[in-house]
Amino acid sequence: MKKIYTIFALSAASIAFAQIQKVEPAFWWKGMKNPELQILVYGKDIAKNEIELSDGVQIKDIQKVENPNYVFVTVNTNEINVPKFKINIKNGKKNISSYTYELKQRNPDSSNRESYSSKDVMYLIMPDRFANGDEKNDSSPNLTEKANRNLPNGRHGGDLRGIINNLDYIQNLGATAVWLTPVNEDNEKVYSYHGYAQTDLYKIDQRYGTNEEYKELSQKLNQRKMKLVMDYVTNHWGVSHWMIKDLPTKDWIHWFSDGENGFKRSNYKTTTQFDTNASEVDKKLALDGWFDTTMPDINQKNPLVLKYLTQNAIWWIEYAELGGFRVDTYPYNDKDAMAKWAKAITDEYPNFNIVGEAWLYSSAHIAAWQKDSKIGEAANYNSNLPSVMDFTLFSDLPKALKEKDGWDSGMVKLYNVFTSDFLYPNINNLLVFFENHDTERFNEVFNGNPAEYKLAMTLISTVRGIPQLYYGSEVGMRGDKNKGGDADIRRDFPGGWKSDKTNAFNPSTQTPEQKEFYDFTQKLLNWRKGKEVIHTGKTKNFVPQNNVFVYFRYDEKESVMVILNNNDSEQTIDVKHFAESLNGFSKGKDIISGKEFSVKDQFKIPTKSSMVIELN
Amino acid sequence: MKKIYTIFALSAASIAFAQIQKVEPAFWWKGMKNPELQILVYGKDIAKNEIELSDGVQIKDIQKVENPNYVFVTVNTNEINVPKFKINIKNGKKNISSYTYELKQRNPDSSNRESYSSKDVMYLIMPDRFANGDEKNDSSPNLTEKANRNLPNGRHGGDLRGIINNLDYIQNLGATAVWLTPVNEDNEKVYSYHGYAQTDLYKIDQRYGTNEEYKELSQKLNQRKMKLVMDYVTNHWGVSHWMIKDLPTKDWIHWFSDGENGFKRSNYKTTTQFDTNASEVDKKLALDGWFDTTMPDINQKNPLVLKYLTQNAIWWIEYAELGGFRVDTYPYNDKDAMAKWAKAITDEYPNFNIVGEAWLYSSAHIAAWQKDSKIGEAANYNSNLPSVMDFTLFSDLPKALKEKDGWDSGMVKLYNVFTSDFLYPNINNLLVFFENHDTERFNEVFNGNPAEYKLAMTLISTVRGIPQLYYGSEVGMRGDKNKGGDADIRRDFPGGWKSDKTNAFNPSTQTPEQKEFYDFTQKLLNWRKGKEVIHTGKTKNFVPQNNVFVYFRYDEKESVMVILNNNDSEQTIDVKHFAESLNGFSKGKDIISGKEFSVKDQFKIPTKSSMVIELN
Repeated sequence: MKKIYTIFALSAASIAFAQIQKVEPAFWWKGMKNPELQILVYGKDIAKNEIELSDGVQIKDIQKVENPNYVFVTVNTNEINVPKFKINIKNGKKNISSYTYELKQRNPDSSNRESYSSKDVMYLIMPDRFANGDEKNDSSPNLTEKANRNLPNGRHGGDLRGIINNLDYIQNLGATAVWLTPVNEDNEKVYSYHGYAQTDLYKIDQRYGTNEEYKELSQKLNQRKMKLVMDYVTNHWGVSHWMIKDLPTKDWIHWFSDGENGFKRSNYKTTTQFDTNASEVDKKLALDGWFDTTMPDINQKNPLVLKYLTQNAIWWIEYAELGGFRVDTYPYNDKDAMAKWAKAITDEYPNFNIVGEAWLYSSAHIAAWQKDSKIGEAANYNSNLPSVMDFTLFSDLPKALKEKDGWDSGMVKLYNVFTSDFLYPNINNLLVFFENHDTERFNEVFNGNPAEYKLAMTLISTVRGIPQLYYGSEVGMRGDKNKGGDADIRRDFPGGWKSDKTNAFNPSTQTPEQKEFYDFTQKLLNWRKGKEVIHTGKTKNFVPQNNVFVYFRYDEKESVMVILNNNDSEQTIDVKHFAESLNGFSKGKDIISGKEFSVKDQFKIPTKSSMVIELN
Repeated sequence: MKKIYTIFALSAASIAFAQIQKVEPAFWWKGMKNPELQILVYGKDIAKNEIELSDGVQIKDIQKVENPNYVFVTVNTNEINVPKFKINIKNGKKNISSYTYELKQRNPDSSNRESYSSKDVMYLIMPDRFANGDEKNDSSPNLTEKANRNLPNGRHGGDLRGIINNLDYIQNLGATAVWLTPVNEDNEKVYSYHGYAQTDLYKIDQRYGTNEEYKELSQKLNQRKMKLVMDYVTNHWGVSHWMIKDLPTKDWIHWFSDGENGFKRSNYKTTTQFDTNASEVDKKLALDGWFDTTMPDINQKNPLVLKYLTQNAIWWIEYAELGGFRVDTYPYNDKDAMAKWAKAITDEYPNFNIVGEAWLYSSAHIAAWQKDSKIGEAANYNSNLPSVMDFTLFSDLPKALKEKDGWDSGMVKLYNVFTSDFLYPNINNLLVFFENHDTERFNEVFNGNPAEYKLAMTLISTVRGIPQLYYGSEVGMRGDKNKGGDADIRRDFPGGWKSDKTNAFNPSTQTPEQKEFYDFTQKLLNWRKGKEVIHTGKTKNFVPQNNVFVYFRYDEKESVMVILNNNDSEQTIDVKHFAESLNGFSKGKDIISGKEFSVKDQFKIPTKSSMVIELN
């Protein structure tokens, strides 16, 4: 990037000012529901010249800002009857620079695309750490940080080709949606592998591949009836983003007059969003403070910023045929602007799912962020955000699994999580998970013991919501954030690199330990694929007794009994207690063990294990 | 009770059937807003005879039930123009039995009585364990359990006279409302001291005193502008209650056809009230299961039961000039019936405060029980219950005090409790406390260390809501529920018995340890008395930094800065951070240390301590 910039600067100097250096979005589509398009045109002192569009295309609005290197041109795409037109920069009658703008044809049914839902299982990948499918792109002469697999926090070379090469693995596992942490260009000097300090919002990082490869991945997933989910970051960009280095307006990002060079770190206390008595200084610090020194906090209140973020999001959906978004650090953003952002996207794609990362531990605090929340409504707020992450379940699940039976402990703690479900306006649209790329590895918490993993996996695969796995846990991967930091919970998937000694991508070369995790996961998730009763069925919970949690999923067509035994001993299931859900059934088949038995008599469940019983 | 019953049975036999043995309420008042009165008339086979009222008083409705020993007679008190009339039981023209029913005059302004509010501080007493003011009533020939102070779970002899004798102590401490655990007759064989297994809802237990003494206590409190708060139990009665022994209808209480002699223990999981997917068996067990073998679960759905409970509650308010209710085990009751109960009471006494014990740990679960809750509304429910207990604060406060500073720990955990305040429809009407008669003693949790007590006391005395103390903590009383059970957290107040070696009621005879607790409490609570800014002022919270929590209470007239330093070291307060609340003030006076200082410069707060600073 730096080099390109230097070349540009040189040539700009030689051919004088007002050359178009960038146009964003680079192209657009005919036939969007919202016909309005705002085109950013960038070039040295470009605003000091006239702008004209060819073929009689009318400029509806033109906005110049304090930085003369930017012009924002608005057109109505409904009124444009040519597939391409020119943006001309003129000085009097002299044409200084031109850009050919294309309005492409949309895919049929693009607007009605399906998105991920509770029918899906989401597989979360950190692309740098999954598989290196193309060693040629491990480093790029244009990008600062070079590959070095010896550095835990360095770039390891994983890429889009590595994911494309392993789609069979992901599909066979039973996942149907793939969430990648950000793959847009992140040209920071260090830690660039995580991708959250984006330096170009319209360009896949060359070390992951190309825009075309990203689209290829999405299309190959779609061919398998799977979905690609983009990790969208509205809250911050990288400090090396070209627009940050040449800000259109000072208020494009947040500054603190009393900070260090304008910088203040966020207090990370987004609970202030709910504290009606929060001090102004804390509310401002939570929302406007920077997530890190390398991540300037974006000001979504600026309408130009919001338009930029909205069009960029829609551009990626349309271009890469996306199946959903995950939005980073949701409550750190301006909430009114985010409500408009989510509405604009879901107006354009009514089925499009967006899950916000509202990392809070109170169900009420999380539920308030979901579209049509009664709690949000009480505060005159509707986020328009379809989905939220169930951090309450994430937080209480490992605690519950570690505990003995008690008034509020053990499986009762787990049950109590679900007693707040009434707070959520759409309980099927919750992301349920027991770990992600920012948390301790579940298998580390339980010392690599498959028993707790199986209990947790059974739970998230059979309760309401969209189960989300984090790459590698399905083969027992561990990692200790407390000791090794983020790098340790983002280790390389074994078999993703040619030099790897073991290959967990191939079930036949998995170690026995890997295989135990994998086989269980694979069986359960593939069973789940066709199970409407799990995707959208009703639930009947029974208050846990003796650290055994039993619930049923049911609809008009079928019933499934799920049992989680959290004891270090075999337990007896007294079927009489569950009569209201077992009445009418005589036999059960546990899809995990494959065993069939009568559900008219009491039966046993082994030590620390789960059963998923189809009733007949 | 048993003896009375035997005598009655004999005399009943000798004078034949249909004698009136009981009338409830025994009398009533003219001029209630609801003129309807339902009189329970009890006697052997009484329903097989005619009932007639004298002086032309009309019977509006008469209800006979499956047990012929009961008749429920409804009259309209507005239409009765005599102060007394007779209830006559007739067999043909022959008058078998009579009862003179009185309609008393109400006190002026009875309906508009004040009740406890955030202006008050509530002092919770277990009367058997506070002070023995009348040794003659320690045991009663009519009541089974006799006094034995050597038994931790026995009756110790504390009584109403003991409380009356110590009103100076309570008032000087700074409390303005007194909540007694139940003092109605509890004639169970053991554990009768706790009073929750009531055997007569219209009669003070003779071992505490008489109805007249109860009224005397209330009147003496009122003369001091203090209030008496009754602990009302709608959920269960004692198994020896006279009506339980001769049930009016089988469905007066809950029975389980598959239980042991109809008995099943509650699962105590009132979170099922919120679980839209809860099984029928669990919902029923939570609500209808018995709290204990000696406590039959009352069926509030039966309209006769509900009427009985409503009139009994109103009778006590009117008779004893009460200043409020605390309702036991609130979510264990039928919620629709309880909403009617609370409405009937607050219709009659619009300012009357009722706090429900909804012992749940999620703010949403608690808030849903408060009148006009948006969360309740979402479930088409309005409890009409004015006040709830802040069990979230109770639960998180000691955890927070034990923790070091962290992302979600220490003072941040405490702050986060208040970020759910938006869920409560009336945040000033929360009972705030750090212990009660059912919980571990706070001073036990912190090994008798006054530092944490002072932090906790400062908090509950200065945040929104109604502070509640538990007798004896103000002199450092300890007690370990985990080791000694309930008895240990309900030890006798030192000085309440003549033989006691120390007397903590008199500040001059308190030990130095007792005095340290007492003096702090006394100073803080007496300061609070006149402080509108604390009672009803606004709050401004600052997110804790370095385990120091700072908040302001303010109104148009004044501002108070509260600082809680939870560190094992002195901390510096950087006043610049609090500019938005400190601007305009130059001096502060810490009402705890009495020191005055400038709030324009940074200042220090000592190790593990609090400051309550009046700003000038």
